[in-house]
Amino acid sequence: MIVGKKVARVDAYDKVTGVAKYTEDIVVPNCLVAKLVRSTIANGKVLSIDIEEAMKVKGVVKIFTCFDVPDIQFPTAGHPWSVEASHQDISDRKLLNERVRYYGDEIAVVVARDEVSAKRAVAKVKVEYEEYPPLLDIDSALDENATVLHKEVRPTNTIVKSNYKVGEINFDDLKDEKDLVYFDKKYSTQTVQHCHIELPVSKAYGENGKITVISSTQIPHIMRRVCGQALGIPWGKIRIIKPYIGGGFGNKQDVLYEPLNAWLCQQLGGKAVEILISREETFTSTRTRHAIQGHFRAYITKTGRLIGRKFYGKADNGAYAAHGHAIMANCGNLVRMLYQDEKVLEGTAHTVYTNRATAGAMRGYGIPQACFMQESFMDDMAYSLGIDPISIREQNMMKLGYVDLSTITCHSTGLQECIDIGKKYINWDEKRKTLGKEPLNKRRGVGMAIFCYKTGVYPISLETATANISLNQDGSVQLQMGATEIGQGADTAFSQMAAETIGISLENVHIVSFQDTDVTPFDTGAYASRQTYVSGGAIKKTAESFKRKVLDRAGRILNLLPENLDIKDDYIVLKRDGTRKMSMHDFAMEAIYSLKESQHITACETYDCKNNTYSFGATFAEVEVDCYFGKIKVLDVINIHDSGKLINPQLAEAQVHGGMSMALGYVLGENYIYDDKGKLLNGNLLDYKMPTSMDHPDFHVEFVQTDDPSGAYGNKSLGEPPTLTLAPAVRNAVLHATGIGINSLPLNPQKLIEEFKKNGLIE
Amino acid sequence: MIVGKKVARVDAYDKVTGVAKYTEDIVVPNCLVAKLVRSTIANGKVLSIDIEEAMKVKGVVKIFTCFDVPDIQFPTAGHPWSVEASHQDISDRKLLNERVRYYGDEIAVVVARDEVSAKRAVAKVKVEYEEYPPLLDIDSALDENATVLHKEVRPTNTIVKSNYKVGEINFDDLKDEKDLVYFDKKYSTQTVQHCHIELPVSKAYGENGKITVISSTQIPHIMRRVCGQALGIPWGKIRIIKPYIGGGFGNKQDVLYEPLNAWLCQQLGGKAVEILISREETFTSTRTRHAIQGHFRAYITKTGRLIGRKFYGKADNGAYAAHGHAIMANCGNLVRMLYQDEKVLEGTAHTVYTNRATAGAMRGYGIPQACFMQESFMDDMAYSLGIDPISIREQNMMKLGYVDLSTITCHSTGLQECIDIGKKYINWDEKRKTLGKEPLNKRRGVGMAIFCYKTGVYPISLETATANISLNQDGSVQLQMGATEIGQGADTAFSQMAAETIGISLENVHIVSFQDTDVTPFDTGAYASRQTYVSGGAIKKTAESFKRKVLDRAGRILNLLPENLDIKDDYIVLKRDGTRKMSMHDFAMEAIYSLKESQHITACETYDCKNNTYSFGATFAEVEVDCYFGKIKVLDVINIHDSGKLINPQLAEAQVHGGMSMALGYVLGENYIYDDKGKLLNGNLLDYKMPTSMDHPDFHVEFVQTDDPSGAYGNKSLGEPPTLTLAPAVRNAVLHATGIGINSLPLNPQKLIEEFKKNGLIE
Repeated sequence: MIVGKKVARVDAYDKVTGVAKYTEDIVVPNCLVAKLVRSTIANGKVLSIDIEEAMKVKGVVKIFTCFDVPDIQFPTAGHPWSVEASHQDISDRKLLNERVRYYGDEIAVVVARDEVSAKRAVAKVKVEYEEYPPLLDIDSALDENATVLHKEVRPTNTIVKSNYKVGEINFDDLKDEKDLVYFDKKYSTQTVQHCHIELPVSKAYGENGKITVISSTQIPHIMRRVCGQALGIPWGKIRIIKPYIGGGFGNKQDVLYEPLNAWLCQQLGGKAVEILISREETFTSTRTRHAIQGHFRAYITKTGRLIGRKFYGKADNGAYAAHGHAIMANCGNLVRMLYQDEKVLEGTAHTVYTNRATAGAMRGYGIPQACFMQESFMDDMAYSLGIDPISIREQNMMKLGYVDLSTITCHSTGLQECIDIGKKYINWDEKRKTLGKEPLNKRRGVGMAIFCYKTGVYPISLETATANISLNQDGSVQLQMGATEIGQGADTAFSQMAAETIGISLENVHIVSFQDTDVTPFDTGAYASRQTYVSGGAIKKTAESFKRKVLDRAGRILNLLPENLDIKDDYIVLKRDGTRKMSMHDFAMEAIYSLKESQHITACETYDCKNNTYSFGATFAEVEVDCYFGKIKVLDVINIHDSGKLINPQLAEAQVHGGMSMALGYVLGENYIYDDKGKLLNGNLLDYKMPTSMDHPDFHVEFVQTDDPSGAYGNKSLGEPPTLTLAPAVRNAVLHATGIGINSLPLNPQKLIEEFKKNGLIE
Repeated sequence: MIVGKKVARVDAYDKVTGVAKYTEDIVVPNCLVAKLVRSTIANGKVLSIDIEEAMKVKGVVKIFTCFDVPDIQFPTAGHPWSVEASHQDISDRKLLNERVRYYGDEIAVVVARDEVSAKRAVAKVKVEYEEYPPLLDIDSALDENATVLHKEVRPTNTIVKSNYKVGEINFDDLKDEKDLVYFDKKYSTQTVQHCHIELPVSKAYGENGKITVISSTQIPHIMRRVCGQALGIPWGKIRIIKPYIGGGFGNKQDVLYEPLNAWLCQQLGGKAVEILISREETFTSTRTRHAIQGHFRAYITKTGRLIGRKFYGKADNGAYAAHGHAIMANCGNLVRMLYQDEKVLEGTAHTVYTNRATAGAMRGYGIPQACFMQESFMDDMAYSLGIDPISIREQNMMKLGYVDLSTITCHSTGLQECIDIGKKYINWDEKRKTLGKEPLNKRRGVGMAIFCYKTGVYPISLETATANISLNQDGSVQLQMGATEIGQGADTAFSQMAAETIGISLENVHIVSFQDTDVTPFDTGAYASRQTYVSGGAIKKTAESFKRKVLDRAGRILNLLPENLDIKDDYIVLKRDGTRKMSMHDFAMEAIYSLKESQHITACETYDCKNNTYSFGATFAEVEVDCYFGKIKVLDVINIHDSGKLINPQLAEAQVHGGMSMALGYVLGENYIYDDKGKLLNGNLLDYKMPTSMDHPDFHVEFVQTDDPSGAYGNKSLGEPPTLTLAPAVRNAVLHATGIGINSLPLNPQKLIEEFKKNGLIE
C-alpha cells in the first residue's frame, strides 16, 4: 500500500533547497514592467486622464488608460464555466475601468523598462473624477437611493438573492406550538485576506502566434479561458504556464491581472511584460473573505431538538462580482446541511455589491462564516437551555444516508467519532463542570464546534478532470495532471495514487508539476477541496487503463492471458501467486524497442465526476481569558477530521495545521479597517497583524478514517475543512469561560473589553 | 487540400522577428560554465593531470579529470536502440578519456562562474602523456603494427567489415565472358563538416529529482537514453528539452557533450552548468562526414549494360565509433540499389578507427560519397565506351517493383521523368555535342548524376513514432510530436498533415514545437529523412483516431450516426452533402463543458512503421572551367526530385536549395587538412572556406510528384537527397569539358591544375 502511507513530499527536496521554480524564478529576457494606476476614490467615474508628464519619465514605454481598453466585459471567477448561461459567471469588468467601484480600482497602466520608472510615471498620472458617495456597507448599498455600481449587469446593488425551504410548513407556523423555545440572534464575520506568501505575479510574452502567460495561479485552464474571453480572441491562442506557487488559498482561484498582462503583451507586439502586485495592492485589489451577516431564528425543544429554523444571510461582495453568489449560497447551504430533520428550515442568501475590496474565494468558501455563526448560535441556545453543547449537536447533526436538497448524499460519516475523540482529548465533561470559575485575569473555559463540508462542486457546477500516464523506458511513468500543486501536497498524493493503482513504487512515478495548457490535460484546477476526489478519480481511471494496456502487451510477450497477470512492486507478476515474470524495466524496454512491435504505452482518461460527498469534523479548544485586557490565550486545541481514507496522513496533518493557523488569525484579530472614504487603513502585514508562530499554541490533530464509497481511494475533502471550526470553538470556549457570547468576529481585545463591560463582567 | 499547398512556415514570424527561442535564449539563472581541457596529442594516454595552478584561478568552481569520471563506456549514436544486442551501438568512450584518440580529445573539464575564468583555468592545466604514433589514414590504422585504439571493444582498428553478394556466380567468373569490357577504378572523398549556424550547446540543471538538459539536438528521446546510459542512472531521471535549433544536418544526431553536462550537474548537486562548444571545437571534436575510399570494378557490355560489379569501400571513422558501421554500410548499399540486374555484384564495406576527428551522421549518411564515386565511375565507363552517360544509367538503374536484399521495395519511381526533365532543361543532346571545345580558359561541359534514397531506417533499425492530438475549447487542436523541427520545416508539414486528416484549417492546428521528454510523445527524432514518412504516419493514425472520437461524440450531440458525419473546414458536416451541422468551436465547447457529459477529447497513437520506400532524382549541371587557374564556375544547375507527393512545395524547394548548397561546398573546396601530428590546420570558418552566397549560382529545382502507396500522404524522403548528386554532376561536367575525370574530392584549383598537368591539358 502506497496510498495511506506517510511518504515525504515529492517536491520536498526542491522546496527546501530553493531549487523549485516559482514564477519569479523563470527568467523572461527583456521583460518590461507594468504598474497600475489606481483610483483614489471609492465610487465614481473617471472623466479624464492626463499622461503627459508621466510619459516624460525616462524608461516609460507606453501608458494605457481605461479609455484605451477593448469594450469587453469579462468574468474573473475560477469556476468551471458551462455552455449553459445560468452556469456562466457575471461579466462585470473591463481590463481597466472607467467606472470606479473601490478605492484602488484599476484605471490605467504604465509599461516601463524597469519598476522604478514605472512607479515614477504612475505617480505623475493625473486623473479627474466624477465622485459619488462611497457605499461601505451592505445597508448603504441596498438603500434605494444608492448609486447602482454595475448598471450594465444588475438594476440594483443586489448581485443575487436566493431562497430555499425544507419542510411542508412555514417557520412562523411554529410560533403556536407548545413547549418550544424561540431564539432570534444575529451574528457577523469580518473581511480578512488570504495572505499567501507569494504575491500575485504574471509574465506574458508572444510566441508561436500565441500569448503565453506564466502565472502564479491555481487554475491554469480556467485562466486560459478567461484571458481568451477578456481579449476576445480564440482560447487556443492563449497558453498558460503554472510553475510552483507560494500559496493561493482561493485568491489565485480568481483570474486577476493576467488578462491585462496578456493584453499589454498583445498591444506591444508580443513583447514580454510582467505584472507583480505588491503586498499592499494584494490587500486592496485582489480578493478577500466575505464579511457576512447572519440572522438566525429557531424553535427548539427544551432538551435541544431543533424543530424549525430560519436563516437570512447577507454577504458584502465588494466592488466586483468575482465568484458572484456562489459563496453566500454555500454559506446558506451549510446551515441546511449540518443540522437536519426539522419540521421547517427557511433560508435566504443575499449577495450585495459595495465599494469595498472585492470578496472572492477563500479557503472554506463561505463555510468558516457559516460555521462561526451557526455554531455560535448552537452554543448560545445550549447555554440558554442549560444543556450540553455536545448534546444539542448530537441530537440534530447530519446522519449517514442524508440526501440534501442539492442531491448531495452522506455516503459516510465519522462525525460522532470525531466528537467522541475531541471530548475525550479535552477532558470535556470534567472541564465543563470545573472551569469558568477562575479569577477574571485567568478565566478558563472549553468550547467546541462541528462542521460538514462538501467535496468538489458537483452538482452545482461541472466536475471533470483528465490525467495522462505514459511509460518511460526504465519502467517508470510520467504522470501529467491538469490539477495543480499549490503547496497543499497534491503532487505527492497524486503520485501515491498512480503508484498504488498501477502497482509500481512511488519513486517510479514522475509527476510533471508545472501545468502548461499547451500540453497539460484539462482539469479545472485547485479549489473546492476537489482534487484528490475528482482528479484522483481521473488518476484511478487512467492508471487502470494504463495497467490494462501494460498487461495486454505483457501477455503477448509472456504468452500468458493478461487477466492472469498483475503488476506488483515494479514487476509483472502472476495474479495467482505473485510469481515475478518480468520487471517493469525489462517490460518497458521490450515494449518500446522491440523490432517486432514497438509501442509507446500511454493512457489518458477523463473522469466526468457525477458525485459528491461530505467530510466532517470538530474542533475542541480550551482557552484562558484575561478579562481585564481582553486577551484570549488558546491553551489547547484539537481538530478531529473525517476526510475519509487519507492518501498521506503526514500531508493531511500539515493541511490541518495550516487551516487551524488561518482560523486562529480569523478568530483573534485579522480584520479590514477602512476610513470613511473607503480607503483601507491596515492593508499591509505590519498593521494587519496575522498571527505569527509566536502567537500559536501547539495544534493537535486526529483523524477518523471512514472509507467513503464514492471516493476513488475512499477519500473525501480535506484542504478547506481545517479552517472551519477553530473560530467558533474558541468563541464558545470564551462563552464557557465568561458567560458572554461574542456574536461577531474578530474576538480582539477592543471588542472583548467592550462586551465584558456591557455585560458587567468588568467595569 | 492543405497537404500539397505552399503555406508559410508556422514558425516563420517568430524566426524572422527573433522571438523564436533557441537554447541560448533560455535563461537558466546562476548557470556555471564548463570548458573542456583537450589533448594536444592525437594518440596516447594521459599519465597525470596537474590542476593545482588552474584551481587558483578566480571563479573556478571545480575541475574534473579523466581520472574522476565513472567507469562507464557509452554509445553516442542517435540510433533508435533495441533490446537486441546486435542493434545496439558501440560503447567506446567515457565522459572524459584517459586513452587519447585524437588531437583535441576530452581529458578534463573546468567548471567556473564565467567563461573567461574557465578558459584561463583550462590554459593552466598541465598534462603528462604517453605518446604513440598518430594513425592519420586508413592504411596506417590497418597496419598490423598499429596501436589498437579501442582494445576494450575491438581487437584491431577495424570497426566492422561487412559483405554482400547478389547473383549466383562470382565476379571473377566473368573474366572469361566474351564482349565484356572490364573497368577497375578507385575514387575517394574527403572529410567535411556540417557547419550548422548554431554551435552545439546544452545547459543542465537539477530539479524534481531529475537532471534536465536543454540541448540543441535533433534527437531528444535518444539523448535521454544516452545520458541515462552514460551516467548509469534510470533513464526516467533524465529530462531533455529541445528548443528551436539552428541547424543540425546530422551532427546533432549524435549525443555529444550532454552526458558530460548532465554528469557535471549531478556532481555539483544539481547546480546549473552550461557547455557551449566553440566553432573551432565543433570542427575538431564533434562529427564530420566520412572520408571514404572506393575501389570499383565492373564488367560491362560495349553498349553499356552492366554485367557484374565488385565494390570495396573503406571509411575513415576517426577516433570514436559514433554511428559505427552504419554509414559505410549505407554507402555500400547504394552501390547495390541504384543499379541492378547484373549477374553478380559483390560488395564490401569496411569501417576503420583512425586518429582523426570522429566521423558520424551528416545529411546523406554515406550516400553523397557513394553517389560521387558510383556516378563518377558510370561516367568514366561511358566516356571510355563512347556512349551517352544518360543511356548507361537508363539501361541499369532501379525500376518499379525492385525488391532489395534488405527487402526495401521500389513502390514508386519517377526517376526516368527526373532524367527527362533535367535533360530537357540543360539542353543535353545539343550541349553534349557542341561543348568541350572552347579555349582552355573557358572550357565548358555538361554533366549529370542520379540517385536513389531510402526513407527512414526500416528494416535495419526500429521505426516508431507517436503523436498526440487534443481538442481546445475553441475547436482548435494541440499537436504534440516527438519528431523534431530542426529548421527543415517539419512543424509546418506536420501541422498541414493534421489539419488535412482532421478536416480543420491550418491555423487551428497549434503545434507544440519544443520537445520535452517529460511530456512529449516518444519518437526517435530527425534523421534519415524519416519524419514526414514515419512520424507523418503517426499523425495520420492519431488524427484519424481523434476524428473518430470527435464524430462519435458529435453523433451523440446531434443524434446522428457518426458514420454519416465528417469534418470539413472546421465544421461537423453531413458526409452525404456537406451540410454544416455544428462548428468545431461549438462542438468543443459542448464536449468539454456539457454538464451532462464532459469529455476532453485526445488521441495518442503509435505508428510502428514496417515499411520503407525509395526517393529518386538527378542533378544536371553546366560548368565553365578555367584550366589555367583550376577554377570551376557552375553556370547552371538543376536538381529534379521524386520525393513522392510534396507536403509543402515551397518548403520542399527550400530544402533542395540548402542541400545543393552543401553539395557545392563538397565538390568545390571544403576539406579537413591535418598536420603530421594529427592537428587540424583549417578548423575554423575562415580557413575552411565554405561557399558563401557570392559563390552560388542560381539553383533550379523541379519535382516529379509520384504518389507513393506506402507514404501516409503519398510522400517519400526529401531532407537528405538534395545533397547527393550535385558533386558528381559537376565532376562529370568537368570530364565532359576537359576529358579529364577527377577521382577524388574536392575539385579545388590545386588538384585540378595537378590533374590537368598530369594529363597534358596544360603545361
